Amino acid sequence: LENRWRWIIEWLTPESAHLWYIKKILYSGKTKYQEIDIVETEMGVHLLIDGKTQSTEFDEFIYHESLVHPALLTHEKPSEVLVIGGGEGATIREVLKHNVVEKVTMIDIDDIMIELSKKYLLKWHKGSFNNPRVKLVIADGREFIEKSPSASYDIVILDVTDPTPGSPSNKLYTYEFYKSVYKVLKEDGLMVTQATSTSFSAEVFATIYYTISKVFPITRGYHVFVPSFLSMWGFVIGSKKYDPLTLSEDELKKRILARNLRNLSFYHEGIHRALFAMGKNLLELIEKTKRLSTDQTPVYMPI
Amino acid sequence: LENRWRWIIEWLTPESAHLWYIKKILYSGKTKYQEIDIVETEMGVHLLIDGKTQSTEFDEFIYHESLVHPALLTHEKPSEVLVIGGGEGATIREVLKHNVVEKVTMIDIDDIMIELSKKYLLKWHKGSFNNPRVKLVIADGREFIEKSPSASYDIVILDVTDPTPGSPSNKLYTYEFYKSVYKVLKEDGLMVTQATSTSFSAEVFATIYYTISKVFPITRGYHVFVPSFLSMWGFVIGSKKYDPLTLSEDELKKRILARNLRNLSFYHEGIHRALFAMGKNLLELIEKTKRLSTDQTPVYMPI
Amino acid sequence: LENRWRWIIEWLTPESAHLWYIKKILYSGKTKYQEIDIVETEMGVHLLIDGKTQSTEFDEFIYHESLVHPALLTHEKPSEVLVIGGGEGATIREVLKHNVVEKVTMIDIDDIMIELSKKYLLKWHKGSFNNPRVKLVIADGREFIEKSPSASYDIVILDVTDPTPGSPSNKLYTYEFYKSVYKVLKEDGLMVTQATSTSFSAEVFATIYYTISKVFPITRGYHVFVPSFLSMWGFVIGSKKYDPLTLSEDELKKRILARNLRNLSFYHEGIHRALFAMGKNLLELIEKTKRLSTDQTPVYMPI
Amino acid sequence: LENRWRWIIEWLTPESAHLWYIKKILYSGKTKYQEIDIVETEMGVHLLIDGKTQSTEFDEFIYHESLVHPALLTHEKPSEVLVIGGGEGATIREVLKHNVVEKVTMIDIDDIMIELSKKYLLKWHKGSFNNPRVKLVIADGREFIEKSPSASYDIVILDVTDPTPGSPSNKLYTYEFYKSVYKVLKEDGLMVTQATSTSFSAEVFATIYYTISKVFPITRGYHVFVPSFLSMWGFVIGSKKYDPLTLSEDELKKRILARNLRNLSFYHEGIHRALFAMGKNLLELIEKTKRLSTDQTPVYMPI
Repeated sequence: LENRWRWIIEWLTPESAHLWYIKKILYSGKTKYQEIDIVETEMGVHLLIDGKTQSTEFDEFIYHESLVHPALLTHEKPSEVLVIGGGEGATIREVLKHNVVEKVTMIDIDDIMIELSKKYLLKWHKGSFNNPRVKLVIADGREFIEKSPSASYDIVILDVTDPTPGSPSNKLYTYEFYKSVYKVLKEDGLMVTQATSTSFSAEVFATIYYTISKVFPITRGYHVFVPSFLSMWGFVIGSKKYDPLTLSEDELKKRILARNLRNLSFYHEGIHRALFAMGKNLLELIEKTKRLSTDQTPVYMPI
Repeated sequence: LENRWRWIIEWLTPESAHLWYIKKILYSGKTKYQEIDIVETEMGVHLLIDGKTQSTEFDEFIYHESLVHPALLTHEKPSEVLVIGGGEGATIREVLKHNVVEKVTMIDIDDIMIELSKKYLLKWHKGSFNNPRVKLVIADGREFIEKSPSASYDIVILDVTDPTPGSPSNKLYTYEFYKSVYKVLKEDGLMVTQATSTSFSAEVFATIYYTISKVFPITRGYHVFVPSFLSMWGFVIGSKKYDPLTLSEDELKKRILARNLRNLSFYHEGIHRALFAMGKNLLELIEKTKRLSTDQTPVYMPI
Repeated sequence: LENRWRWIIEWLTPESAHLWYIKKILYSGKTKYQEIDIVETEMGVHLLIDGKTQSTEFDEFIYHESLVHPALLTHEKPSEVLVIGGGEGATIREVLKHNVVEKVTMIDIDDIMIELSKKYLLKWHKGSFNNPRVKLVIADGREFIEKSPSASYDIVILDVTDPTPGSPSNKLYTYEFYKSVYKVLKEDGLMVTQATSTSFSAEVFATIYYTISKVFPITRGYHVFVPSFLSMWGFVIGSKKYDPLTLSEDELKKRILARNLRNLSFYHEGIHRALFAMGKNLLELIEKTKRLSTDQTPVYMPI
Repeated sequence: LENRWRWIIEWLTPESAHLWYIKKILYSGKTKYQEIDIVETEMGVHLLIDGKTQSTEFDEFIYHESLVHPALLTHEKPSEVLVIGGGEGATIREVLKHNVVEKVTMIDIDDIMIELSKKYLLKWHKGSFNNPRVKLVIADGREFIEKSPSASYDIVILDVTDPTPGSPSNKLYTYEFYKSVYKVLKEDGLMVTQATSTSFSAEVFATIYYTISKVFPITRGYHVFVPSFLSMWGFVIGSKKYDPLTLSEDELKKRILARNLRNLSFYHEGIHRALFAMGKNLLELIEKTKRLSTDQTPVYMPI
């Protein structure tokens, strides 16, 4: 142990934290929007924003596949996809695996983060930023969506940092914002958002779920264990027409083959339904949470 | 933070650890077999054995319900149940909820641990040690099973600490031991064991799975997220006749009602099947792991 | 390291802390006045009050000898000694080594702390609480002194916890209090107080020094390195007549022999003068610090 | 605290460590000889080599003034000075303050460390590397001394990292090496070496002291508290003719003025003698330590 002296102490609550040994520091600095550390830990290359693990080389596939594929496979033919956030480039990497996707528009507020990804996170984006189907726009995600024409996209993917006071992501978890997302989706479109942990911040997850359910006719929450997050990570789908729970394993398998979806490391048709299962305690919390996140009173992480 | 000075540093690997703030120390001492700390953290009363979190007041129900109910519900009429370990008394608490259970024999090696449970862990055992259907024996689990007559039990539940060099649990994860368990089970009996983490020690899980599959005709692995373990926790069922995956939700619901299984906080028929689902990466690891844990070369935790 | 999981994190500032491995917990609880932990670390038995190291088995002699002997040897014939605080009993242990001392009155506010000392800190007090020359009074130190008759003592020793908001020690570092101490001292009497660290809280030390210099004609600051405090620890002598810096090594040696002062482990005549030496930076800080600690605006530790 | 996530855990023993919050990372990398981190902590710019604090912006003056001035002032006219190590450039900075010094030869094994100093540690060297009286040689210190002609220097200053297995400094704390140092010193020359902590590694200090005393007729140990080292730091002077303890304060003051020694922040004539004072416990340890550090059995730090 004496040979290990650089550590990240990632605070989860005021009374618990995780220690990650830093083998090597690749980058550490501030952009206009956030503080970024790219280091090497036992999880491989490890990205932290404002001291919170965003994704790591060894398990980012679990997060990114779980974010992207349930939503895209639920849609019969997702052609136009909008991604807000996802600066590592791994979200668009997964979207591009669907051969039916014709165009991915990616919006990120932080051009420095994109430059750092290009330089240090090749294992994430794998060159996706240069894919001709991708259009990258440096802009505020909320403003971009509000200015977009109605019914422009089949899928909107929200892959932004957790809502905390002062974060640029705050306005991307509110009722007003989801109304705008609804508007830019086509009539059979659907959205998916990361929705924080269902273990450490279950109330935040439930609030996001409730807020989306006030905008979309079909709302489905699901979650997956991401080792470097030390918890089940939650996602919420808001959909105008398609329901991810009515797809059979056979139909899913058919779509996976038809879209030539290769190189999946975590997601498969056999786990799709299980992602949406939750324990009684979480179901009851969701059931009783009736809090709407609004621009006036946005939901925030507990720490 | 300055007001928080007592901490547990729970080492998960040499390069990562978890910090738990200790609000209060209830007990800290050594028995003949292990070092025991019972403290209060943000997880409520928090039990550690040899510096590893065993269970906590706030989430022990997830672990204990997931350990007990899939196995007991898979059996048509579990009448005689043997529990090895489970010193907190919460495993027998869950077993006793099944009104079809006539007798639970509980074996624990450490009488001091049992005394500490009676004194400090009322929220776990809820008086189960005094239940007339329970017979508690202080003994070595392996010796007890080897001396038991054949075909004595419907269910054997193994709820012992992880296999580490020097631990009394070492001989309870081997081929030879599982052969003995097979012998004491009736012809339609089944066993379930905790099987360490499927995230941090997936190779150990896969080895236990493989070893049990060499003894029982039906082997099923499953896992559940336990917040205080910071990971998916694995279990393996070895069964002579019944398969937990052939039960429909309807049949499960019927059995739950028939057995008057009340006060479940996590498990329900809707999550049963999802517990057995795994990502491609874990399925592939299990597929390729062909390591047998034997008395000569037992499997050990990586740290 | 995996075998070490209980730790004290002793915060020195918001940006630095010390980690002490807890081998064993002897006591951990709250009294009416303070939170007390008595544990075993690499420093032997280790006493913390409110999360701050008070003294440890392996180096308490450095602190207690340095607190007591410079003051007592400076006085020609200290007969009546008053000790405020010093609940471990080690301060009176050192005072009693001077055969010229006829009576030691010890005042401590916390009777539980005294009981804990008697039970766990034998190596500190070595039975001194039962010495017939000792009179122990459970009382508020400030009130006791204010009610004492004038000119009662040759020496007053202040051995109380650092001044922090809410601590019972707060009123024992002010101008008004030192005036009362002056009053209860005989015409050739002198006082000594612990005065916090000259490294981590040099401004507090300098403020105490300045405040005492406004009450006593002779004021002398000194300091000594105490390993478990990780810093130089400061003391201030306020004296009506005798000056500790005018004593020659020969005279000190003579007094040590005459008083039959045995079993000293740190202090000796050859180090007396060196204790009062300070670097230019500290001398300059003391020179420029003109802050008076008063009941209205008492001095507090920075953390 | 949640806003502080990058920390150095500096292990002092297997059972204690210090936590330093890293505000900013200036450099982190490996040279051929050592692992170097230059970060910003509450101590300002903070240099660590192999995870051990070497010096910090806020208190390096205490270490460097204490290393250099007692030795140089003890010599009547130090003209030729050899410095081994001292890669930050602060040791030569202090040497150059003596106007009687005509030439300083500095030997460092690690040219990358020197480049890093030039880039990041301006506050240490203050341009000293460019002083015309300085000659910098990148070489192995031991080899350089062994090849140097006899009687070349008035003063040799050894400012190298602590002796640990595998460190390039190992051969710079042995009897054989000190014999070589003796040889290159003029007939009235003297050497000084940093000698590790007199608190945490007092046995190492005592061994270095003993070893030097077997080579030089006059040997003197002294120590000073360096806050960022959390302990008293030791030094040993080996001298052929002059004794640092026979200098009066008046003579020291005269030399300081004559040499136009300005801008001292810690050292002054009034603290010179006090640096050499030690408690009974340390004096007794030195007295009883009869261990010779040799090339065959060199002394090592306990951790």
